[in-house]
Amino acid sequence: MSTSCSVRRGDPGGAFLATARGEPASRRPVWIMRQAGRHLPEYRALRERHAFLELCETPELAATATLQPLERYDLDAAILFTDLLVPVVPMGVGLAYEPGPVLERTIRDRAAVESLRIPDPQEELAPMLETARLVRERLDPGKALIGFVGAPFTVACYLVEGRGSKSWDATRRLMYASPETFDALLERIAAALEPLARALVGAGCDAVQVFDSWASVLDADDYRTRCAPFTQRLVSAVQREGGVAIDYVNGAAQHLETLGASRADIVAFDWRVPMHLARRRLPEHRVVQGNLDPTLLFAPRDALRRRVRELCAAATDAHVVNLGHGILPDTDPAAVEALVGEVHRG
Amino acid sequence: MSTSCSVRRGDPGGAFLATARGEPASRRPVWIMRQAGRHLPEYRALRERHAFLELCETPELAATATLQPLERYDLDAAILFTDLLVPVVPMGVGLAYEPGPVLERTIRDRAAVESLRIPDPQEELAPMLETARLVRERLDPGKALIGFVGAPFTVACYLVEGRGSKSWDATRRLMYASPETFDALLERIAAALEPLARALVGAGCDAVQVFDSWASVLDADDYRTRCAPFTQRLVSAVQREGGVAIDYVNGAAQHLETLGASRADIVAFDWRVPMHLARRRLPEHRVVQGNLDPTLLFAPRDALRRRVRELCAAATDAHVVNLGHGILPDTDPAAVEALVGEVHRG
Repeated sequence: MSTSCSVRRGDPGGAFLATARGEPASRRPVWIMRQAGRHLPEYRALRERHAFLELCETPELAATATLQPLERYDLDAAILFTDLLVPVVPMGVGLAYEPGPVLERTIRDRAAVESLRIPDPQEELAPMLETARLVRERLDPGKALIGFVGAPFTVACYLVEGRGSKSWDATRRLMYASPETFDALLERIAAALEPLARALVGAGCDAVQVFDSWASVLDADDYRTRCAPFTQRLVSAVQREGGVAIDYVNGAAQHLETLGASRADIVAFDWRVPMHLARRRLPEHRVVQGNLDPTLLFAPRDALRRRVRELCAAATDAHVVNLGHGILPDTDPAAVEALVGEVHRG
Repeated sequence: MSTSCSVRRGDPGGAFLATARGEPASRRPVWIMRQAGRHLPEYRALRERHAFLELCETPELAATATLQPLERYDLDAAILFTDLLVPVVPMGVGLAYEPGPVLERTIRDRAAVESLRIPDPQEELAPMLETARLVRERLDPGKALIGFVGAPFTVACYLVEGRGSKSWDATRRLMYASPETFDALLERIAAALEPLARALVGAGCDAVQVFDSWASVLDADDYRTRCAPFTQRLVSAVQREGGVAIDYVNGAAQHLETLGASRADIVAFDWRVPMHLARRRLPEHRVVQGNLDPTLLFAPRDALRRRVRELCAAATDAHVVNLGHGILPDTDPAAVEALVGEVHRG
């Protein structure tokens, strides 16, 4: 990687930030959703000694988990080790992982929405911000640090259902049965996450990704008119602080036009729409992030490398390589190395 | 409904079949996925006395369940009471419902694929065919009877994973890691379901719907090249027997172009792509079926009726009204009545 390193020294934030800003980059950047986590033996060793929420709430441990994948792979960005539901605790909703998230109560009426607090992140989410500061100190200046928040719709899904769901029927049902309560809930969540999104940039995150993990269950019109505007508030908050905003939608096939109109610097989406088709539906020169199927990491290496090359060719240079969704826990790190190597060879 | 009844008397098969064949229909037809099932108190009463598989395997009981919604609502079609996994039992894979389906083994290698039998439906799926005969005898000739089979990809999902899944990672992993095994599995499932699809028409089904409930997890290219062709084999089998074929894909946003090119008489899809957008991406005059969000049945009645009117206007006359996915068990039958009434008033 010596050729690209020499360029990146003169390019604070490196290939990721240059690409995000539409500037020429030394190489095509790559990072991987859930890169800090269970597919790494060194992370599993950490988890043997500490519960998941304990890791999130202990800056030294969270910083270690954040940096582990950067020590193993030649990635262009670190992503803060935390969870998109961590902010619901200071909003007033207790949370446990069993191992999926289970909330202590559901939010399904106006009184419950009104009960949600707007936390001061400097006080109530201090471990997350301290983690960002620690990582930024220790991270190569040529690598970007990405923080993240949940999109208001996705956080609403968990608050309404109280746990994970296949199709989030209760959330859609609330949207249709009690539209004012639904809108007030998204408004409240956006108000709670805006200060956090700003604070993450203040604490050293170069970028903040807004994760809309469950927008896939919504129709295109409802998403565009009732949910995407709240994501845009978070995007603007990040940008006003000078950060790069990434708008990620999982299951974006019906939302590509809405995503294309996002004010975010980077739009990111899952694998369901092949990049060559997505490019036709997105505005020209849009910086995209994605979108390999995480299960491709189980393919024979030559097939994986071919798909990486096809992806990069279809995406053009305005592209940050990533998976379309989080890496699977039983992925072989050697497959990740093959992916990263192929991107940087290209 | 007197005005339409008089027309349907001269129109065997009624509004559903006329619409399916692109002929003028007396009214806009409507039926509802999972209309025979838990949202009906009379079905819940049946289930108190009989297990789910017992209902499927006892023609008199399955016929009763099939006809229950037709006695309550002015629907244009009955759909056979059965399950898309019933055929895997004579293929050699035991099945229980706990309450979701749990298979006694998974099919993940070539030897397991080779072990799958091709059942003779007249012998080994006789209760399903006998149910069709009973229902066809008892059903108003102006109403259509719809049978169904799983699409090979969706049946493969269950065979690979052994139970339900959010994202069917093991299935996609098999597709990429062992493409020949995956292709052989779909081939074997299609070979097993083809005789059943034909036999359903022979037993009195006017139409057969091929359910691709999980195609949503596939990218558009993989679906088009590796899965849709096996669905087309079933579509052709139905049509060769003189039946109407319905090609239903759940989560079809990225598959609309592939679905538009289906040889099926009717293409059906979920709610994620609003009908006005789907119409732009489908060939003109394509007969469509769908696609209200099942949770809309929990909306205030005037909002539900407005969405029905918007759907019908966007769909044009080449349209069979349905939900985009199965009706939810806690739906109020009065909401279904409002939906059906609004369709027929239009």
